[in-house]
Amino acid sequence: MIESNLNKFQVPASFPLERVGERIFVIGIGLIGGSMVLDIKSLRPEATIFGIDSNESHLDEAIALGVIDAGSTFDDLANADFVIVSVPVDAALTVLPKVLDAIGDQTIVFEVGSTKIPICEAVSNHPRRRNFIATHPIAGTEFSGPSAAITGLFQGKTNIICEVERTSFKLQEKALDLFKQMGMRIRYMDPKSHDKHIAYVSHLSHISAFMLGKTVIEKEKHEQDIFDMAGSGFESTVRLAKSSPAMWTPIFKQNRKQVVKTLEEYISNLTQFKDLLVNEDYDAIFEEMESVNRIKEILNGMSPSTLKAEAVNK
Amino acid sequence: MIESNLNKFQVPASFPLERVGERIFVIGIGLIGGSMVLDIKSLRPEATIFGIDSNESHLDEAIALGVIDAGSTFDDLANADFVIVSVPVDAALTVLPKVLDAIGDQTIVFEVGSTKIPICEAVSNHPRRRNFIATHPIAGTEFSGPSAAITGLFQGKTNIICEVERTSFKLQEKALDLFKQMGMRIRYMDPKSHDKHIAYVSHLSHISAFMLGKTVIEKEKHEQDIFDMAGSGFESTVRLAKSSPAMWTPIFKQNRKQVVKTLEEYISNLTQFKDLLVNEDYDAIFEEMESVNRIKEILNGMSPSTLKAEAVNK
Repeated sequence: MIESNLNKFQVPASFPLERVGERIFVIGIGLIGGSMVLDIKSLRPEATIFGIDSNESHLDEAIALGVIDAGSTFDDLANADFVIVSVPVDAALTVLPKVLDAIGDQTIVFEVGSTKIPICEAVSNHPRRRNFIATHPIAGTEFSGPSAAITGLFQGKTNIICEVERTSFKLQEKALDLFKQMGMRIRYMDPKSHDKHIAYVSHLSHISAFMLGKTVIEKEKHEQDIFDMAGSGFESTVRLAKSSPAMWTPIFKQNRKQVVKTLEEYISNLTQFKDLLVNEDYDAIFEEMESVNRIKEILNGMSPSTLKAEAVNK
Repeated sequence: MIESNLNKFQVPASFPLERVGERIFVIGIGLIGGSMVLDIKSLRPEATIFGIDSNESHLDEAIALGVIDAGSTFDDLANADFVIVSVPVDAALTVLPKVLDAIGDQTIVFEVGSTKIPICEAVSNHPRRRNFIATHPIAGTEFSGPSAAITGLFQGKTNIICEVERTSFKLQEKALDLFKQMGMRIRYMDPKSHDKHIAYVSHLSHISAFMLGKTVIEKEKHEQDIFDMAGSGFESTVRLAKSSPAMWTPIFKQNRKQVVKTLEEYISNLTQFKDLLVNEDYDAIFEEMESVNRIKEILNGMSPSTLKAEAVNK
């Protein structure tokens, strides 16, 4: 899918190819890729941003929005300084080896998807593996496409880097300089740990929100008024159900085993809560909720000692 | 619980009781009651706000924060223009009849809790039933206590009113004028429909978030690093797990049957999604998510015709 139109876009003859700055290529110009190059454009004004996208209208839109400077093709990757691969994770499996085939010796390629084992495996034996760095910037919104790109999306966010030892030192440095300039903090992790943990803190949240939306929509079929009653709490909990199925289906596919495991645990916890309610064990219900309340402090990243002091003062 | 300290607070001798404005009493000075009187103070500067709270430190805090003008007792309710009862819904069952016993003929009392059948039943045969209006302003945050009170919380929000015909016409008007001044839109509903629908759009979201938090925290016991990986998506989905167990346990208790039903439907949808994943039916997974995507438009309150136009332009 991603490849069908890859060769349709040529740099316009009038385009100043002789610019002095870095040549940044973004393949797949949506929320993440688009936001990355918006940041790069503002941080490194000399850089030229080239876009490659299987969706012709995305390219036009990205140019019109000023997200990229020009459309491009795989043939131009030999001159790239950076290649950002930000396509759905299933497409990444075929796009990445093609990118590595096409780049130059000094090009650093990074991919930004939400699964890491399949991505790392797909390029594990590629002769240019050392030109690749596997990343997962934990940032995003529920929107997609070029118009979803925003500046500053990565400020203060975590970027998980996997198998860093398999990237050449010089190119690691080049990528890390950019990530740090964007304001990201770096965490190193092996792909297996990444995929396991991200199932809990990201993939499960999406399914939780999608199925909450489904449960309420099913009800609403017969009761049109119900959404007049929905407040900001529902909106917040269901927000991720606006996410793109084209992006999320391959993520669930690639991380199937872990996601199934987290779902089993989630369903088991929900069932247990339901049983407490059926049995009218309100003390246990209170305690369940109270013990989860500490998510406040966890999300605030507070240390246990700070928490204790806070609790006393409340 | 709510009653233990009710008589501890007296209006200070120096307090200007002869003020010309309305006398507003708020019983239970937390997020909802506190935010209401903050709005009233700014909309009706002549009004005097009296607070009654079983928690002595809440009263002190509310005075210090400027949320109320003075502490008060049930003995003063005879002179009240408005009494806002904003205590947990279990406490409301005993507080409300006591309030109705104490008020004057022209006092309008409203209660703001998240369940309506038990509340309406608790005062159904009270001789002053016509001084009471059952409401549920669909507004809030995950915070609680006087410091959670904020101005403008109700602007643009829905206020569900139940059994409106059981409130005297003149006092209905008095309450509605206030609600409209606060920027709320009014929806009338019978208590049974309210409790049924609110289970879907509010109570279920809270359990969904609490159990998501639990599932992730259980994991985190052994993996301290996991929360470095949590992004804004997780934070949004789990936000309601910060809510007060003291407020939510009695809500779940009073709306037990409906909440159990929504939980059963939610668990069934999650299980079905899990099975699709186990069976690797990715087309069905895509379709599931795509069909829930219309939550976007539902939340935006768009009409079907607007949606169609939007979809074409995307």
